[in-house]
Amino acid sequence: MKAYELQPRDGLDALQPADRPASGPLGPRDVRVRVRAVSLNFRDLGMVRIARKLKRPQIPVSDGAGEVVEVGAAVTRVRVGDRVAAAFFPTWHDGELVEAYHGQLLGGTQDGMLAEEQVLPETAWVHLPEHLSYEEGATLPCAGVTAWHALFEAVALRPGDTVLAQGTGGVSIFVLQLARAAGAQVVMTSSSDDKRERARMLGAAHTIDYKATPAWGDAVRAWTGGRGVDVAVEVGGPGTFDQTVAALRYGGTMSILGVLTGTKGEVNTYAVFHKALRIRGIYVGSVRMFEALNRAVTQAQIHPVIDRVFPFAEARAAYEHLKSGAHFGKVVIRIE
Amino acid sequence: MKAYELQPRDGLDALQPADRPASGPLGPRDVRVRVRAVSLNFRDLGMVRIARKLKRPQIPVSDGAGEVVEVGAAVTRVRVGDRVAAAFFPTWHDGELVEAYHGQLLGGTQDGMLAEEQVLPETAWVHLPEHLSYEEGATLPCAGVTAWHALFEAVALRPGDTVLAQGTGGVSIFVLQLARAAGAQVVMTSSSDDKRERARMLGAAHTIDYKATPAWGDAVRAWTGGRGVDVAVEVGGPGTFDQTVAALRYGGTMSILGVLTGTKGEVNTYAVFHKALRIRGIYVGSVRMFEALNRAVTQAQIHPVIDRVFPFAEARAAYEHLKSGAHFGKVVIRIE
Amino acid sequence: MKAYELQPRDGLDALQPADRPASGPLGPRDVRVRVRAVSLNFRDLGMVRIARKLKRPQIPVSDGAGEVVEVGAAVTRVRVGDRVAAAFFPTWHDGELVEAYHGQLLGGTQDGMLAEEQVLPETAWVHLPEHLSYEEGATLPCAGVTAWHALFEAVALRPGDTVLAQGTGGVSIFVLQLARAAGAQVVMTSSSDDKRERARMLGAAHTIDYKATPAWGDAVRAWTGGRGVDVAVEVGGPGTFDQTVAALRYGGTMSILGVLTGTKGEVNTYAVFHKALRIRGIYVGSVRMFEALNRAVTQAQIHPVIDRVFPFAEARAAYEHLKSGAHFGKVVIRIE
Amino acid sequence: MKAYELQPRDGLDALQPADRPASGPLGPRDVRVRVRAVSLNFRDLGMVRIARKLKRPQIPVSDGAGEVVEVGAAVTRVRVGDRVAAAFFPTWHDGELVEAYHGQLLGGTQDGMLAEEQVLPETAWVHLPEHLSYEEGATLPCAGVTAWHALFEAVALRPGDTVLAQGTGGVSIFVLQLARAAGAQVVMTSSSDDKRERARMLGAAHTIDYKATPAWGDAVRAWTGGRGVDVAVEVGGPGTFDQTVAALRYGGTMSILGVLTGTKGEVNTYAVFHKALRIRGIYVGSVRMFEALNRAVTQAQIHPVIDRVFPFAEARAAYEHLKSGAHFGKVVIRIE
Repeated sequence: MKAYELQPRDGLDALQPADRPASGPLGPRDVRVRVRAVSLNFRDLGMVRIARKLKRPQIPVSDGAGEVVEVGAAVTRVRVGDRVAAAFFPTWHDGELVEAYHGQLLGGTQDGMLAEEQVLPETAWVHLPEHLSYEEGATLPCAGVTAWHALFEAVALRPGDTVLAQGTGGVSIFVLQLARAAGAQVVMTSSSDDKRERARMLGAAHTIDYKATPAWGDAVRAWTGGRGVDVAVEVGGPGTFDQTVAALRYGGTMSILGVLTGTKGEVNTYAVFHKALRIRGIYVGSVRMFEALNRAVTQAQIHPVIDRVFPFAEARAAYEHLKSGAHFGKVVIRIE
Repeated sequence: MKAYELQPRDGLDALQPADRPASGPLGPRDVRVRVRAVSLNFRDLGMVRIARKLKRPQIPVSDGAGEVVEVGAAVTRVRVGDRVAAAFFPTWHDGELVEAYHGQLLGGTQDGMLAEEQVLPETAWVHLPEHLSYEEGATLPCAGVTAWHALFEAVALRPGDTVLAQGTGGVSIFVLQLARAAGAQVVMTSSSDDKRERARMLGAAHTIDYKATPAWGDAVRAWTGGRGVDVAVEVGGPGTFDQTVAALRYGGTMSILGVLTGTKGEVNTYAVFHKALRIRGIYVGSVRMFEALNRAVTQAQIHPVIDRVFPFAEARAAYEHLKSGAHFGKVVIRIE
Repeated sequence: MKAYELQPRDGLDALQPADRPASGPLGPRDVRVRVRAVSLNFRDLGMVRIARKLKRPQIPVSDGAGEVVEVGAAVTRVRVGDRVAAAFFPTWHDGELVEAYHGQLLGGTQDGMLAEEQVLPETAWVHLPEHLSYEEGATLPCAGVTAWHALFEAVALRPGDTVLAQGTGGVSIFVLQLARAAGAQVVMTSSSDDKRERARMLGAAHTIDYKATPAWGDAVRAWTGGRGVDVAVEVGGPGTFDQTVAALRYGGTMSILGVLTGTKGEVNTYAVFHKALRIRGIYVGSVRMFEALNRAVTQAQIHPVIDRVFPFAEARAAYEHLKSGAHFGKVVIRIE
Repeated sequence: MKAYELQPRDGLDALQPADRPASGPLGPRDVRVRVRAVSLNFRDLGMVRIARKLKRPQIPVSDGAGEVVEVGAAVTRVRVGDRVAAAFFPTWHDGELVEAYHGQLLGGTQDGMLAEEQVLPETAWVHLPEHLSYEEGATLPCAGVTAWHALFEAVALRPGDTVLAQGTGGVSIFVLQLARAAGAQVVMTSSSDDKRERARMLGAAHTIDYKATPAWGDAVRAWTGGRGVDVAVEVGGPGTFDQTVAALRYGGTMSILGVLTGTKGEVNTYAVFHKALRIRGIYVGSVRMFEALNRAVTQAQIHPVIDRVFPFAEARAAYEHLKSGAHFGKVVIRIE
């Protein structure tokens, strides 16, 4: 079958087309899926950077959707013809994250989805909402589940609440869509006039240019009438942490999940307890969370925002587009 | 000032107009409010039934809204001219219900709101959402706060969830409006074709005639595709308990708050643990919950559903109308 | 291998010795265990009563412990020689109970543990605390996990809290031991002078003879100085429900898990919401809960209370002893 | 009455004896207490540093206990002769911290406890556990309540859990005592051989010399068999943050409440979400938490660890002793 591999080269040269043998006979609980689309996450750029450290050439990308083409003898969860996506953590079914789940990550510690076929145990596959295309469904496993986890599992977002989302990447756009579906108001930050305009058209109640307003945390709090937001989804990391703290209300929750400004840096820890804040580390989520996300996406008839779809042959261009930061929403690769 | 009193007579004869002296000078943290509207709850009918047991004639009704006309020297929470409603439990500010709060209930253990004026400590008053009239605001303290508590404090309702509401009384209509604002779907039961039609017009996803379908719990579960609803707001009590259990999903939550079918009766307790259910007793809620409700009502621009407004002089007719069960939503009395 | 089967006969005649063929080659994730001891639960008596309804003769008993004697090629969770017990719900690993888990129950919907060997997937086996014998370890899967779930998952028991346990069966004795390990005080009810004495020797702070004191719920509340207990573990069902409600504090939690007085009956639902109670249906628990229980049992060096150990050849006598109700703690069958 | 004041001078010269007029007649809900002992917290040293910024000379110290000597006409919560302590936040009764509660802090924004008398509303006073002296009771309001909040409100500590406490100051010793009462194991860090020895005598399961072992977070995790601790009480702030993260298990909770290493600094935020950690800012706690603490202290018969008691005349020496860092547990001043 056709696939891409990360090979031990520098930069995006690591991403190379490859011809892989089809996998052998299925185990009794295995499911074979013809992949139709994948979506990219920043994590996929990170994997390119460490391509030389991989033990063997590996198929990249965690997020993909497709059609069930064969099922093992004992499979009950899906049928041939079902439209499914793979869970980011194939072995995290329910409950809390434990360290062992990190050991089996698609496109991380095992072959991922940028290939014509993928075989995984039935418990790793989740049905797509009916109203979504494969391209749309492929955006859910990482960005969609992360946003769901940040708003409805780490905290209980309620109608009337206010939410801060940073930037207009895949997670933040899902945060906007899901928070609105829950009756909350969202304030978004972006330095691009055009992206702020698009965010407002998608329903953002307020937007802030964080370059023009370096103390944007105070601006967020001012927008809430001085109370502060109930929930902030922190995708920046240390470089945005203090402003996010300033934006939050007393007792508010920061769902932290990103490293866009780095993995470490100086932050104000005093304010965390002075304001009695809650911080929750969010690492995507479980199969059960994915299913709950899908019920919400279906009920609210949410369509994920896709910035651009690239053909399979132009996968490298898709990576370059994501790297440029020019996107608004998700970057997708279609596998005909 | 003009008021009504419950006097030691039988039936609605207990409700009598009275002329009460205006209350004296305010304490430093007291607030005097000119009451503009009250709304009735089933509890108010219950108080009429025990009118002969009251130690002295007492002004009835827990729920009322009006305008601040005078504040004590140390008051900071409200100002003269503010539009406010009184909390059902004037001393329950935040945290859990404790027994002591039952000792100070408007229209229960102390004078209530069916009068031209009421004086309470500043902490008992909550600002009305700006888009609501006094008549609308007067419906919030008991029915609105109860529905909020049942959906967003006892449990964390999420978009995509399903909710069962019984009948079309004040609490159930608020449940419908608030659950929809949170992106959930609501199924409602009523034996009246007309009321079911109105419920659907207000956004109920499905309605069931519980008289025509005695096993309506199974019908609710069937409507969810066999999974069962996530949350059920139980206003009936023992007579509806088993069907409500049948309607719920494994691990679902029953918020129990009503006695329409009695205070005790035969129920199936085995099913409660076989389905790993959660049951939460809901007794209105705290001032903080009231404030959270108001943020949601404001954000979603919810207008409480008022069945009919009676003039002050016709308070007895308002009680009779509530007693008839013909209402859909809340019964209100205006105090000019 | 030697085993017992439930065959289609009446009463305890249904329990018959049988010679079963050893199971075949292991699947890659399967684990074969030489069973050394099982413990009985009331549920096992219930299975005897419905023996005629079983589709085929079935090995009974959910709770057993033994030694790993063979592992499949892909097994990582246990090794040959490990001392383990089987989870009551072999497929409930973490998170909430869902209906599907009910479909695979040891000694319920599939062969159980009253046999020399049992083969289950590795995820169904849990390591025994080191200080426990096989006989002690065999008491944990149902009674121990249920008590843990009732005290530490459905609610968060804290030092200084008070707990009500009913009777002196397996679950209630675990409740006593675990609650004491958590710094809580336990009040127990029993109509036997001898059992009450033994409960006090095990650390019960107070005991009540429920036959001599029919209003024992009030007596419990009086013992707490009028406040009421924080948590009650309801094993009786409808016949004890109202007294349990009387015993609880405002906002207290009833963990309901038993049917000793029946599956349905008349209860007071009004009191549930007047006291703002929480009721949680407890159906044993997950593998993760079992592991958490074991950490507590190890740290507190708890030894489960075994009433009596019967040899394998006298399994029927063990059933009869449990049925008599004379036991205090768990009834165990040793499999040499 | 005799008191100390913070006057606008440098260093501990700011602390000056003063003669204050007795407060006037009580309001209807006020309670006058003859203070018998106070305890010092690091916050009290901080107040000395900003003494020149105070608007007027102010009586310092938040934590004190004494005897009720007079009550207002409407007081029901305490009686003359009762032994009580003042809540750190006199207006935070229950529920979450809100910004307004910061506006009324004893020894912070209003006169504190280092005086012969203090008058506060009845709701600000909490009864002392009967087995404690005034000196012991005076240690509870800040350090005791903080430890309680960190272990039993921000998270639900359970028997078998493991806890990390840093150093041997007042909060950390309470953490040790309370965690042990809940059946958890505690690992403590200290660079003093003597203090580590004393910590072990008080029941610490393990101690680590953080100076000899700079990667003490890894050492903590190793001590748990590689799993990591369930809860860490972070009193250091940014300088200890990363090691605390290393010490925690996946999904573990850091209760952050101290600034011993500063208010800001470089930390690793990536690890927070990679390990799915929870961080809770802890700022002392509510009156209700204080009451829950007292039930636990009573049930476990905990005696707070007092390092040294100074007479009223030597208050300055008490401050100097705390500042030296030589203490183990709490520093107390007796007011005869």
